[in-house]
Amino acid sequence: MSRLLAAVSAAALFVATPSLAQEVDLNAVNGIVDQGMNHSQVMQTAQHLTDVIGGRLTNSPAMRQAEGWTQQQFRDWGLSNVHAEGFEFGRGWSIVRSSARMIEPRPLDLHAIPIAWTPGTGGTISGPVVVAPIANAGQFDAWKGKLQGKIVMISTPDTGSEPDTAPFLRWTDAQLADRTSFSQPRNDPAAAERGLRSPQADFAGKLDAFLKAEGAIALVRMSARDGDLLHGTGSGYRVGQTPTVPGMELAAEDYRRLARLALSGTAPTLELMSEVQYDDTDVNAYNIIADIPGSARGGEYVMAGAHLDSWVAGDGASDNAAGSAVIMEAARILKAMNVKPKRTIRFALWSGEEQGLWGSLAYVDQHLATRAPLSDPAFANLTNNRTWRARWPIQPRPGYSDLVAYFNIDNGSGKIRGINAEGNIAAAPILEKWLKPFESMGVTTVGLRPSGGTDHVYMQTVGVPGFQFIQDPLDYNSRIHHTSADTYDHLKADDLRQAAVVLASILLSAANSDEPLPRMPLPTLPTPSDPFAYPAPN
Amino acid sequence: MSRLLAAVSAAALFVATPSLAQEVDLNAVNGIVDQGMNHSQVMQTAQHLTDVIGGRLTNSPAMRQAEGWTQQQFRDWGLSNVHAEGFEFGRGWSIVRSSARMIEPRPLDLHAIPIAWTPGTGGTISGPVVVAPIANAGQFDAWKGKLQGKIVMISTPDTGSEPDTAPFLRWTDAQLADRTSFSQPRNDPAAAERGLRSPQADFAGKLDAFLKAEGAIALVRMSARDGDLLHGTGSGYRVGQTPTVPGMELAAEDYRRLARLALSGTAPTLELMSEVQYDDTDVNAYNIIADIPGSARGGEYVMAGAHLDSWVAGDGASDNAAGSAVIMEAARILKAMNVKPKRTIRFALWSGEEQGLWGSLAYVDQHLATRAPLSDPAFANLTNNRTWRARWPIQPRPGYSDLVAYFNIDNGSGKIRGINAEGNIAAAPILEKWLKPFESMGVTTVGLRPSGGTDHVYMQTVGVPGFQFIQDPLDYNSRIHHTSADTYDHLKADDLRQAAVVLASILLSAANSDEPLPRMPLPTLPTPSDPFAYPAPN
Repeated sequence: MSRLLAAVSAAALFVATPSLAQEVDLNAVNGIVDQGMNHSQVMQTAQHLTDVIGGRLTNSPAMRQAEGWTQQQFRDWGLSNVHAEGFEFGRGWSIVRSSARMIEPRPLDLHAIPIAWTPGTGGTISGPVVVAPIANAGQFDAWKGKLQGKIVMISTPDTGSEPDTAPFLRWTDAQLADRTSFSQPRNDPAAAERGLRSPQADFAGKLDAFLKAEGAIALVRMSARDGDLLHGTGSGYRVGQTPTVPGMELAAEDYRRLARLALSGTAPTLELMSEVQYDDTDVNAYNIIADIPGSARGGEYVMAGAHLDSWVAGDGASDNAAGSAVIMEAARILKAMNVKPKRTIRFALWSGEEQGLWGSLAYVDQHLATRAPLSDPAFANLTNNRTWRARWPIQPRPGYSDLVAYFNIDNGSGKIRGINAEGNIAAAPILEKWLKPFESMGVTTVGLRPSGGTDHVYMQTVGVPGFQFIQDPLDYNSRIHHTSADTYDHLKADDLRQAAVVLASILLSAANSDEPLPRMPLPTLPTPSDPFAYPAPN
Repeated sequence: MSRLLAAVSAAALFVATPSLAQEVDLNAVNGIVDQGMNHSQVMQTAQHLTDVIGGRLTNSPAMRQAEGWTQQQFRDWGLSNVHAEGFEFGRGWSIVRSSARMIEPRPLDLHAIPIAWTPGTGGTISGPVVVAPIANAGQFDAWKGKLQGKIVMISTPDTGSEPDTAPFLRWTDAQLADRTSFSQPRNDPAAAERGLRSPQADFAGKLDAFLKAEGAIALVRMSARDGDLLHGTGSGYRVGQTPTVPGMELAAEDYRRLARLALSGTAPTLELMSEVQYDDTDVNAYNIIADIPGSARGGEYVMAGAHLDSWVAGDGASDNAAGSAVIMEAARILKAMNVKPKRTIRFALWSGEEQGLWGSLAYVDQHLATRAPLSDPAFANLTNNRTWRARWPIQPRPGYSDLVAYFNIDNGSGKIRGINAEGNIAAAPILEKWLKPFESMGVTTVGLRPSGGTDHVYMQTVGVPGFQFIQDPLDYNSRIHHTSADTYDHLKADDLRQAAVVLASILLSAANSDEPLPRMPLPTLPTPSDPFAYPAPN
C-alpha cells in the first residue's frame, strides 16, 4: 500500500470511527489506580453517609446533614464551585421511633416501619385489623361502613417466596451480553398523556381521604419482600398533600399471620405507635454540585452523578451511598492528582431521586432543556416529573451543548462491568476505548440497550449523552434494594474502589478528548412504536 | 427347576433378605392417599400450632397450650392412651414485649428479640455500648473495670454474607446419593468425658456472673443470620441457673452498625426494654403420647415422633410445627381409616428438643434403656443429656425390645425423599420395600449415613431402630431454621400432605410386618476410631 493510499485510508477511518482518535492517558490511569486503591477513602465516605448520618430521605434532617457534610468534603478536597442547587420538593419527614405489636389473640412484637410521610399515631393506638385489599377507587363502596375504628390491612396477603436463584451474583460474560444488546425504542406518545388522566394517578390521595372519612385509625401494608425484611413504602410529600391516616409497613411474615388469623375467625388486635417529625422550614430539596474547572474548552463540561437521598428503610448504603461515595472518591482522586482537564469535570449528588428523579430532572430543566407546557388546564398542578414525557417540543437552554457527557452510578455496590451506551451507536466505540484500560478489572462491556430508573434518564429524554454504568448486581436486587438490610456491611470495598478508579479515568478521558462525544438527535415527537395497538385501559 | 429346589431357594432367600417377606398393603396405601390428600387436615393443624398458638418454647405458656390442644386433637380423632409424660426440665419463660433503640448518635429503631430465659430489663434501661467479644473465661481480665453501666456487645462483628447458592432447594438424585452413602461411625469415648471437664462447659454461667459483678446493665448478641433476620439464642433455664443480666439479640445489620460506630469513635447509646415472664409452677416438661392399639403382638409397638417445642424467634413452623402436624395427620389418617394394626402404633410429640433432645431422651431413659452412672462426684449435678454418651454400659429396660421401629421427622416442610437407615444395613432393604409405593412421589432413597441433631439420636445410642426421614430442604437451612421468618407462610401444603401419607403408610407396614425390623447390636464401649490421635484441647 502506498503512503498516499494509507493516508486516505486513515482519514476515512477517522470519519467512520471517531473513537480511534480518543486517546486514554495511561500514565494518568496509573496515578488514578495508585490514588484510588492505595489511598482510597471510599469506604470512609460510605461509612459516614450510612452509619453516622443514616438513611437520607429527601428533606429529612439526615439528608440536610448529608448535604452539608458532602459539600464540606468537596471543599476540603479542594473542589471548586461547591454549592447546593435548590428545587421545590415538599416536606421533610423523619422517624423518631415506632413500634407495632399484636396484643390479641396473643402478645407478639411485629417488625414494622412507618410509611414515609404518614402522620404519627399521637401515642399508642390500638384496634382490630380488617383485611381490606383496596386497589382502586371503584372498590371503596364495598368497604363503606366497615372500617370505623379499624386498622386497615390494605395489601393482598400472599404466601412465602421460593427463591431458587442465588441471591449474590456477579455477571458472567454471557449474562452481560444478554443484557446489553440493542433494543429498539418503544414509544407511545399518547400513553404519556393518558397516564395523566388515569383514575389511578391520584389513588393514594383518594384512599387516604376514604379511610379518613370512614374512621379507620391506621393503615398497614405488607413488605414487598419476605424473609422478615422491611422494604419501605411512601406516600405524598408535597405541602398540602400529606396523608392524614397513620400508616405502617409490616414484615410480610407478620402481615400474612395477621391476615390468616383474621380469615380463620380470630381478627387480631394491634397496638401501633409511630412518632414522626415534619419539617416545612424549607420545602426546597438540594442537589450538591462540585467542579474541577476546565482550562481550554469554554463552558464545556463532563459530569458524573449519583443520588445522595435514600429511601425509608435501612441506611441507604447500596442505594445509593455506594454511588455517592464513588462520585466523591473520583473527585478526591482527581483533585489529589491535581489534574488540569481541558473541560470542567462536574460532580453531582442528586436529591429527590427516590420520588421520581426530581433532582436530576431539576438540573435538566434548569440547565439543559425544558419542554413546552401542556395546554389542558387540568394538568396545571401536576408535578414536572409526571408531565415531562407528555410535553412537546423540547426547548434547549443555552447550556444545552455544554454538557458533553454524563455518567451515572446507581446500581449498588458491585464493581463496574461496563456501561450502557443507551442506544447511542456513535458513542459506543469511544466509550469502549475509554474503558479499555480496565478490561483486566472486569470492565468488558459497552451495551446499547437503554437502562432506566435513575438520574441519567431525563438527560436521555432531551438528547444529552447520559450513560449509566453496568455493575455486578451482588445481592442488590435480591435482598438489599430499599430494605432494612441496606446497610454498610453489605458494601464491598474492592468493588467500590474499582468503581471510583474507573469513573475517575473515564471522566478524565471525556474531559480531555479532542472531540465531544457524539450526541443523539434532539428528540422530537415520536411515532408510536405500535401505531395500531388498541389503547390499554388505565 | 423342581418344586423342591424352588422351595429351598425361597427359604434361603428369606434368610438372606428378610425384606422380601415384608409386604406393603397397597389397598391400604390407596386409602391413605385418599384420606391424606383429599381430606387432609395437615395445614389446619399446622396453622393452629403456629398462628394461633405461636412459638412454643419448652414450658412457656404457648407450649402448655400446645400440650393441651394436641392431646385434645388426638382424643377427638379417637386415639387411645392419650397422655402427657413429664420429665424435669426447668422454668417457663415467655416474652411479653420488647424493644431496642439507638438514641445516640441518631435515633433508630433496632430489630431485636430477648435472649431466651434472660431476665427482663424492669422498664426501659439505657447506656452506652462497649464491643467486648468475650469467648472464654480467660478473657475476663482484659475487661475488668470497663463494663460498669455498659451494654456489652458480646459477639464478634463480621461483615455481610454473600449467599451464592439458591436459598430454596429440592434435592436432585445426585445430591441425594451424595448425602446418604455409608459412613463409618467415628467414636472417641474419652472425648465424651473430657467434654464434661471442659472449662467452656459452663462458660455461659461464668460470663453472666462476670458481667453481673462488673456492673454491666445488659448484654447483646448478634443474630447468626444476616438480611435482618433474627435467629434466636438462649441461655440457662434450669431452676437456679437463670441468668441475671438481661440479654437481647440484635439483627446482624443493627449489631454491626453499632460496632462500627463504636470503633469509629461514636460509641452509641441504646435504650433496651424487655418484659418477660417466668413460670415455675411446674418445672416438668411434657411429651405427648397417643396410640392406635395393636391387636396381635403383645407389647410391641412402632412409633413416630416430632418435637412440638420450638425456639424463641418466629412461630416454630418449619421447626417443627411441620413435623408435629405430619405426625398428627398420620394419626388422623390411620384412625379415619379405622386400621387395626398387629402392633400398636404410637405417636409422640416431644418437648425440650431445642435444649438438647430432652424429651426423647427422657422417653429412652424411662422406657427403653438407661446407662450406668458416672463415678466422679464432680459430675453428679450434670444433666442427663450432657453425661449420656460418657456413661457405660447401657442397661436395657424391660420395654427395650418392644419398640420395633421409630420414625422421626424434623427437617422442615419439604416432602419426604427417603429415609436414613442410620447405618443399619439389615434394615435398609426393608425400609426400601416399605417406601417403594411412593417412588413416584419422589421417595427414592434409603441412605445409610447416620443423621443427627434430633429425636431419633438417643434411640440410636442404645441400639433401638430409630430413623430420620430425608426431606427436601427448601429454604429451611438458608433462612427459616430458628429465625423470625419461621412462620406458617413458608410451609408447603403439597409437601406436608405427601409426608403425612408416606409416614402413615410406613407406620402401617411396620406395625403389620411379620418380623420386627432388624436391630443393631446393643452398643458397648467402642474403641476410639483414631486410637493414636492426640487429644484436642477443650
